[in-house]
Amino acid sequence: MYRSHTCGELRIEHVNQTVALAGWVQTVRKFGSITFIDLRDRYGITQLLFGEELNKQLDENPLGREFVLQVTGIVTERSNKNKNIPTGDIELTVTAFTILNKSEVPPFTITDETDGGDDLRMKYRYLDLRRNAVKKNLELRYAVSRSTRNYLHENNFMDIETPFLIKSTPEGARDFVVPSRMNPGQFYALPQSPQTFKQLLMVSGYDRYYQIVKCFRDEDLRADRQPEFTQIDCEMSFVEQEDILNMFEGLVKRIFKDVKNIDYSEKVERMTWEDAMWNYGNDKPDIRFGMPLLNIKKPASVYVNKKDQSELVGGADFKVFDEAETVIAIAVPGCSEYTRKQTDEITEWVKRPQIGMKGLVFIKVNTDGTYKSSVDKFYSEEKLKAIADAAGAKAGDLVLILAGTEERTRKAMSELRLEMGKRLGMRKDNEFKLLWVLDFPLFEYAEEENRWVARHHPFTSPKPSDIATMINNSPVITDASKYLEHPYANIKANAYDLVLNGNEIGGGSIRIFQRQLQEKMFEALGMDEAEQQHKFGFLLGAFEYGAPPHGGLAFGFDRLCAILGGSESIRDFIAFPKNNSGRDVMLDAPSSIDAKQFDELQIKLDLKQ
Amino acid sequence: MYRSHTCGELRIEHVNQTVALAGWVQTVRKFGSITFIDLRDRYGITQLLFGEELNKQLDENPLGREFVLQVTGIVTERSNKNKNIPTGDIELTVTAFTILNKSEVPPFTITDETDGGDDLRMKYRYLDLRRNAVKKNLELRYAVSRSTRNYLHENNFMDIETPFLIKSTPEGARDFVVPSRMNPGQFYALPQSPQTFKQLLMVSGYDRYYQIVKCFRDEDLRADRQPEFTQIDCEMSFVEQEDILNMFEGLVKRIFKDVKNIDYSEKVERMTWEDAMWNYGNDKPDIRFGMPLLNIKKPASVYVNKKDQSELVGGADFKVFDEAETVIAIAVPGCSEYTRKQTDEITEWVKRPQIGMKGLVFIKVNTDGTYKSSVDKFYSEEKLKAIADAAGAKAGDLVLILAGTEERTRKAMSELRLEMGKRLGMRKDNEFKLLWVLDFPLFEYAEEENRWVARHHPFTSPKPSDIATMINNSPVITDASKYLEHPYANIKANAYDLVLNGNEIGGGSIRIFQRQLQEKMFEALGMDEAEQQHKFGFLLGAFEYGAPPHGGLAFGFDRLCAILGGSESIRDFIAFPKNNSGRDVMLDAPSSIDAKQFDELQIKLDLKQ
Repeated sequence: MYRSHTCGELRIEHVNQTVALAGWVQTVRKFGSITFIDLRDRYGITQLLFGEELNKQLDENPLGREFVLQVTGIVTERSNKNKNIPTGDIELTVTAFTILNKSEVPPFTITDETDGGDDLRMKYRYLDLRRNAVKKNLELRYAVSRSTRNYLHENNFMDIETPFLIKSTPEGARDFVVPSRMNPGQFYALPQSPQTFKQLLMVSGYDRYYQIVKCFRDEDLRADRQPEFTQIDCEMSFVEQEDILNMFEGLVKRIFKDVKNIDYSEKVERMTWEDAMWNYGNDKPDIRFGMPLLNIKKPASVYVNKKDQSELVGGADFKVFDEAETVIAIAVPGCSEYTRKQTDEITEWVKRPQIGMKGLVFIKVNTDGTYKSSVDKFYSEEKLKAIADAAGAKAGDLVLILAGTEERTRKAMSELRLEMGKRLGMRKDNEFKLLWVLDFPLFEYAEEENRWVARHHPFTSPKPSDIATMINNSPVITDASKYLEHPYANIKANAYDLVLNGNEIGGGSIRIFQRQLQEKMFEALGMDEAEQQHKFGFLLGAFEYGAPPHGGLAFGFDRLCAILGGSESIRDFIAFPKNNSGRDVMLDAPSSIDAKQFDELQIKLDLKQ
Repeated sequence: MYRSHTCGELRIEHVNQTVALAGWVQTVRKFGSITFIDLRDRYGITQLLFGEELNKQLDENPLGREFVLQVTGIVTERSNKNKNIPTGDIELTVTAFTILNKSEVPPFTITDETDGGDDLRMKYRYLDLRRNAVKKNLELRYAVSRSTRNYLHENNFMDIETPFLIKSTPEGARDFVVPSRMNPGQFYALPQSPQTFKQLLMVSGYDRYYQIVKCFRDEDLRADRQPEFTQIDCEMSFVEQEDILNMFEGLVKRIFKDVKNIDYSEKVERMTWEDAMWNYGNDKPDIRFGMPLLNIKKPASVYVNKKDQSELVGGADFKVFDEAETVIAIAVPGCSEYTRKQTDEITEWVKRPQIGMKGLVFIKVNTDGTYKSSVDKFYSEEKLKAIADAAGAKAGDLVLILAGTEERTRKAMSELRLEMGKRLGMRKDNEFKLLWVLDFPLFEYAEEENRWVARHHPFTSPKPSDIATMINNSPVITDASKYLEHPYANIKANAYDLVLNGNEIGGGSIRIFQRQLQEKMFEALGMDEAEQQHKFGFLLGAFEYGAPPHGGLAFGFDRLCAILGGSESIRDFIAFPKNNSGRDVMLDAPSSIDAKQFDELQIKLDLKQ
């Protein structure tokens, strides 16, 4: 052993002991004939004191930052104690040292606020990983994984490994495939998730399964996506939705406690998908703050059970509103005194290409009881008051209104709400709010193909009350213009998403466990019998031999860690992430392979010119 | 929730409680107007009693084996208690039941001794997994993983995930590769192990890393190999060999305790590679029993420090021995009275193609002090006695002697020793003996290419005392016939294997952490600078920025579980294994992929006719 203690271990009670430490040189501070060195390892930093004699040796063997050093010495009480670090009461008076390895000058500083750009840090990821900020992220990740495993173990879940070399059944996302040398012309796929395997384990009677497991999707990478990512994957038998919700909010509360020391004792809120969309404009609302949407003009037939309030803006000959598919407002608290410059800035914000609106209407609800709006010439004060009241605005608030096509306007208002919430400090990093979103539609309509697609995935069960509707009706949509009147349009899924601070951290469903219903689902998705058999014959087969009712959930582990760590980027919580082109710039992968490899795999390139 | 209790939970103290159970019908036994059903779930079996009224309902809805049932009823004390199962004191008097799902008649019986053949059970793996024997294996596997994680956690190891989509650097085994759609013409590789990543994590200062992780090797599958397998992968910084040995024999002892309740308090034995080969004929000896090899004629120059005893058999004009490269004997205890039939049978056994010897010589050391041998006409009793004595034979033993070429004879004798040990009951399933094998040669000689190959892998460090030899000599072998005289031939590796009952369960090494030495190693393996840079530039780079001394070890997790479970086959300990052609016969994978997938990946098939 190169050391008797770590650099984070020594305390006042070790004074006068002879110890050995090993670690990296963090700083070198020379004062005449003595030198102080901060020696760093994973566990902390210890100050080393090199006296006169050793100082000479140091002159002959100069130490640089990041040199690897082994020292022996005597623990000494410091005269100038450092209260900021746990070892700050002592220093080590060095009696002998060995340079275990030298270091070039690192290409960027190994500090929390580094001068290294993204590309440089990715190329030298092994140095980036030395930074305390990154180390803390990986430690948090390990703590989350440990807490998860303990909770699930205590609740009788078994970690069971599922295979990585499986069959390509591209449904939603694209598969990564792996040519099989032993079966020329054939390919494995890497799993997008262990979905069917965990269901088979339920059929096999394993009752409660979990795995913290890598999954793979060959998608064009958006800002915060990775081609390989990690899931906490769980499945339970003999459960209904309520059982799953209880079990997994329990898991997240346990993680809060273990990792953040937060007692999340309040009840986890629940909201239907329709309410989430109606009140927040998206299916993963951040409920750390209110500012709900007022849907003034509701888009035709999107929200079946919601009331239209078009009369609030109609009959004023304001074309922008009259011609819009939808008009949506929010009341931003305490902003009625925004200047022209400020309202212009928000208008520019919604006109950015990422948001894509043409403009913004505002109503200032002044504290003196008057109303001032950008559309004063179309609407009387009385009308403005009616709109502001409906949006829940109080004196001093600023009502913001967007109008346009349904989807874009809704998304834009959702973003604007989040932006205003952020600007007003209503989205606090250290506040955590969980929310279950429930009752998703089972199907979405795919316009190009005039057919249904599964909103979640093809294994999600409809609500028990909707099973008959599904079985007894044909999924065929005869009249595309009336797809909303098709009985399948209103089928709700037995599915649930867990949302944390506006991020979907987990989602799942009660699964179909009856062959007939599963076949109907595949049929609805446009799979004929041959295709069903080719892709999922094993699952349909399994359902014939006593499949139990079951359901489960998967957490996006990378994202969960990022949110708990107060970050927007999952990349900071992955030891060796890929960039937005799916490249590992440190390894320089992917890369070319040898002619011999092509030959053995019996494939060749077919590059488009 | 479909149940209030599991099928393994109810005891005498639950009598008179109303409970709900759910599970699978194991057996149905009708006795006139009542029916007994054994209901099974993961946790156990509970006997259900259907009284007269429900019996009628059962007649209308007949239950078959593996039907999924939900029942409510009252816990009742049994008159005929079953002491073999924990729930045997009670039964459930059913008041209502629901058939949750039906089952076809399974293609094989779901029992410990099943009538299903291998292929059938693999095709219906989800039914095979229901068998108690398989379930126990997966439970053991989970227990080993849990024990491992707890021990490593307590010893400051951090679970850090390493990537699966990496760079192809085929060294030893063949890589599985993954075409990159976003980087046309380029491929990722699946990791054969996280070797370089864990070393980088040490460079990054993570100090102690572990992972239970899938690895991939595209090899022609031998009987007990899988293309994807699981490793317990560990690495530590600032350690010497002794530290690693202590840490990981501690891990295995902890697993013994947690999983098998065995207190392995004895010291783990250690043996040099040379002694293992000399005394047992292989590098992973089963030391549950003795029966060491007597190398009568040692092959020229293989064992540098060992004594030749050719004089024992020379000068007798027995050509078989005179012409053999090597002659090896063992003394099998208590078998001097084997009949002709028995010695013939052993002779046939060594002549099987798997063993490949031409014959067997035996010497019976009779209890009356006489000697009887198959080569009596060449050797006097005195000579026979000398051989038998040298082999350590006592009165009543049987000496078996093989002669031939070095490698084949050594392997054959190693196999024969194991076979005789097995026949004599010296290899007990419930006895566990650990052994460290140390001081492996760093290099092996590759005859075809007249160069060195790494015996372990290119990152293994030579013994500290051999580093100078390695650095100061050219690896080039100028005279192939004298490769044994090359200074590299005697370099020993700082490597170690952990052997359990004759199986290598883990292996590792102290790593090279100096750029210069690593380059020398790559050079020795025939890699020029450009290739070194292309394949391992990131690692050589990392060694320039303060790499600490480090080392580690990886356990073959599947094999470790199999041995602890008393099985020879790792397949029984993997939930969804592949067959010997690398196929998952349940999924029918690998399989063809769509034209669209080829198109997107810009590859095509190049099948040999």
